[in-house]
Amino acid sequence: MTESWATFGADLHLELAAGRGLRAGLTEALREAARSGRLAPGLRLPSSRSLAADLGIARNTVAEAYAELVAEGWLTARQGSGTRVAERARARRPAPAAPVRRPVRPKTSYSLMPGSPDLGGFPRAGWLSAARRALSEAPNEAFGYADPRGRVELREALAGYLARARGVYADPERIVLCAGFAHGLMLLAKLLRARRVREVAVEGYGLDVHRDLLTGAGLRTRVLEVDAAGACTRALPGSGVGAVLLTPAHQFPTGAALTPERRAAAVDWARSTGGLILEDDYDGEFRYDRQPVGALQGLDPDRVVYLGTASKSLAPGLRMGWMVVPRSLMDEVLAVKGPTDWSSSAIEQLTLAEFIRSGAYDRHVREMRLRYRRRRDELVAAVGERAAVSGIAAGLHAVLDLAAGGERAALRAAAWQDLGLQPLSFFRHPDSVAPPREALVVGFGTPPQSAWSATLAALVAALL
Amino acid sequence: MTESWATFGADLHLELAAGRGLRAGLTEALREAARSGRLAPGLRLPSSRSLAADLGIARNTVAEAYAELVAEGWLTARQGSGTRVAERARARRPAPAAPVRRPVRPKTSYSLMPGSPDLGGFPRAGWLSAARRALSEAPNEAFGYADPRGRVELREALAGYLARARGVYADPERIVLCAGFAHGLMLLAKLLRARRVREVAVEGYGLDVHRDLLTGAGLRTRVLEVDAAGACTRALPGSGVGAVLLTPAHQFPTGAALTPERRAAAVDWARSTGGLILEDDYDGEFRYDRQPVGALQGLDPDRVVYLGTASKSLAPGLRMGWMVVPRSLMDEVLAVKGPTDWSSSAIEQLTLAEFIRSGAYDRHVREMRLRYRRRRDELVAAVGERAAVSGIAAGLHAVLDLAAGGERAALRAAAWQDLGLQPLSFFRHPDSVAPPREALVVGFGTPPQSAWSATLAALVAALL
Repeated sequence: MTESWATFGADLHLELAAGRGLRAGLTEALREAARSGRLAPGLRLPSSRSLAADLGIARNTVAEAYAELVAEGWLTARQGSGTRVAERARARRPAPAAPVRRPVRPKTSYSLMPGSPDLGGFPRAGWLSAARRALSEAPNEAFGYADPRGRVELREALAGYLARARGVYADPERIVLCAGFAHGLMLLAKLLRARRVREVAVEGYGLDVHRDLLTGAGLRTRVLEVDAAGACTRALPGSGVGAVLLTPAHQFPTGAALTPERRAAAVDWARSTGGLILEDDYDGEFRYDRQPVGALQGLDPDRVVYLGTASKSLAPGLRMGWMVVPRSLMDEVLAVKGPTDWSSSAIEQLTLAEFIRSGAYDRHVREMRLRYRRRRDELVAAVGERAAVSGIAAGLHAVLDLAAGGERAALRAAAWQDLGLQPLSFFRHPDSVAPPREALVVGFGTPPQSAWSATLAALVAALL
Repeated sequence: MTESWATFGADLHLELAAGRGLRAGLTEALREAARSGRLAPGLRLPSSRSLAADLGIARNTVAEAYAELVAEGWLTARQGSGTRVAERARARRPAPAAPVRRPVRPKTSYSLMPGSPDLGGFPRAGWLSAARRALSEAPNEAFGYADPRGRVELREALAGYLARARGVYADPERIVLCAGFAHGLMLLAKLLRARRVREVAVEGYGLDVHRDLLTGAGLRTRVLEVDAAGACTRALPGSGVGAVLLTPAHQFPTGAALTPERRAAAVDWARSTGGLILEDDYDGEFRYDRQPVGALQGLDPDRVVYLGTASKSLAPGLRMGWMVVPRSLMDEVLAVKGPTDWSSSAIEQLTLAEFIRSGAYDRHVREMRLRYRRRRDELVAAVGERAAVSGIAAGLHAVLDLAAGGERAALRAAAWQDLGLQPLSFFRHPDSVAPPREALVVGFGTPPQSAWSATLAALVAALL
């Protein structure tokens, strides 16, 4: 026993030398020894006096460490029986390492995968300035539990911005902040289910994660085919759906702008059936050639839920989105959001509010719009006759239509160039009956500025 | 017609003078006029040339505004028919204002409502410094879509901190960040439902919002009565529950520390039945008199999900929480979290990581611990013989047991003092059969430092 205690003491000593407090180090060392089984369950420990002498530390330190471990259940202390290692002290170590599954995109040297802005363009300095002002001006209550709609400062800043820049009827009272578009869509899906809606119309091309969110909430999706005029909203009447998810300003990913007639058809359908339009305005800020196209929500704020996000205009990493909700739906939205779901940090909310108020948001969008527009022009010029480029009046991606067999060849060639590319077919709804298009969705917003030229060259090489 | 145009022009002019760009101002004015019905559907607009002359602006500006409004569906332009207000342009105005329901606590001059730290103690300067370093060091990819578990930098910082300060077996690979405790509990409730668990044991006193979260996910709750030794975990075997939600370090709100025997009983139950322990370690950092009490999770990291939060140690407004998940559950947790739920801003995550790494978190906790300890001592001294104070070895609140009839009298007197107070009965599970206690839960952490003395005086007055 003496020997094992000597070993034990030496180990402890190592721990104690590691710069932690004496008591903390001793406690940790004893806990580990009990946990690992090095100290067997039932083993009687030396008295605090003798261990203290052994280690050359105060007796009280040992006694306190023992007491803590008794409180935690590692040791037992019974009158007359001394301090022992508890029977269940042999805690199971965590199960052996198994690979943790996580969704990762394949890493390539170059990437034109759509869906991301140029992350190198994030306005770090401006954001920090806004954070400084926000932190110095925030009332104390801002750090507490808060309005489930989000901070009023941000809702007010957004209301002004959305009315001005996107033609949205935006009352701060009816704005609900959320952790990005997907969070908002999840809340709306729950709301629709609670209303006994069974089916939601979605565009024939779109994001599978959004469709999965809807089906995950128990809703079926029904295809609205997409053409050069956007989604065929005339198919809504008689379809029996309770809602429709649309990207009117810039169809994702085909890039069409929903025509006035089709906007009107959607609103007419919603009015006559009581249906709901979910407007995904993911990149409405980035329009190049034409007049800005305002939000559909302006046509009927009582039948459209407008969803916006900072993911394209600033960064997805902010996890910041917003909904402008018809008044008649506010109670239901707040009910599904729940009293305990505030989603995003009040500091970040106040920072974004300050960023918008100060004009930094507008300046940033303007600057990035120029950058993306330049890239778009270079893309069109570089692609030349190799593909028909479309969907480029706005946004951070373009569609390149290829000749028959071109999609597969391009993807194979891109792999050789170590270039990440997404085919249009990836976005196709499985139920779509539209004639398939051989095309690529090129996210020209994605590369960092320094890699843009090389990435473009890799694309051109892949199209040869 | 001339007259109405004159009116119209004058209104436009007002808009145009408001400092917006000419085209934007004109577009907005026309849109509003169509929206409000002031321009009737079908009405033919003047030619762009004549309106331009009328307003004294370039014809192109008018033509561009017309084109934008046609694209948005407010106007129609047909060859030979000129530009007209669209038939459905009479957009419905948002429904008339109805009061938006939102949960608010009654506002009182003084508050001892439990559940909040002193929001005035938020370390604004230190947080901003950490944000500055985080923003300057963050790789670009940090601003993008990310690992659904959260940033690795924060998971690593937390793993070190939790092992050191809370005795948690914390592998960064098994930490999942969430938007506060409630978000984590919601995910776990979904996971339990997916595992076909029907019932979860909860403590006889606890937060109704947590119980509601469980029942909202389709789970029933079953009471574990609470006494001075914490929750009666010996009642777990045979209860048929699939999981138990516990506050072992500091029962909320009674303040008991779960005894070693009861910890062991919980772990034994979990091991023998395959049940899961959800450990809510909401204020484990704030322990005053006794040795720190480590987390229950250390006893069996494969059967305990540890849930921590920055809501008490820093601020609820951060919406930052974390789970340490048994390896065997990681896939399921990530599945319910979904690929599109990242919850909190990467910048805030990196800031908190930096705040912990730099030692600022430890310093802040130490400083606040001193502050709360001082308040606790003053509370005990001030209350004196008026009530039996308990649950004060840790945390930000105390329980004041009163004589029969005392609770009601104290609440009435507190209302006169304009003091917010919560009775213990508020936290009682409706199914609890324990003899009721007349008591108050006093959140001495809640008041700002400047109001502490006055708040304490109001409490004493209410207890007279």
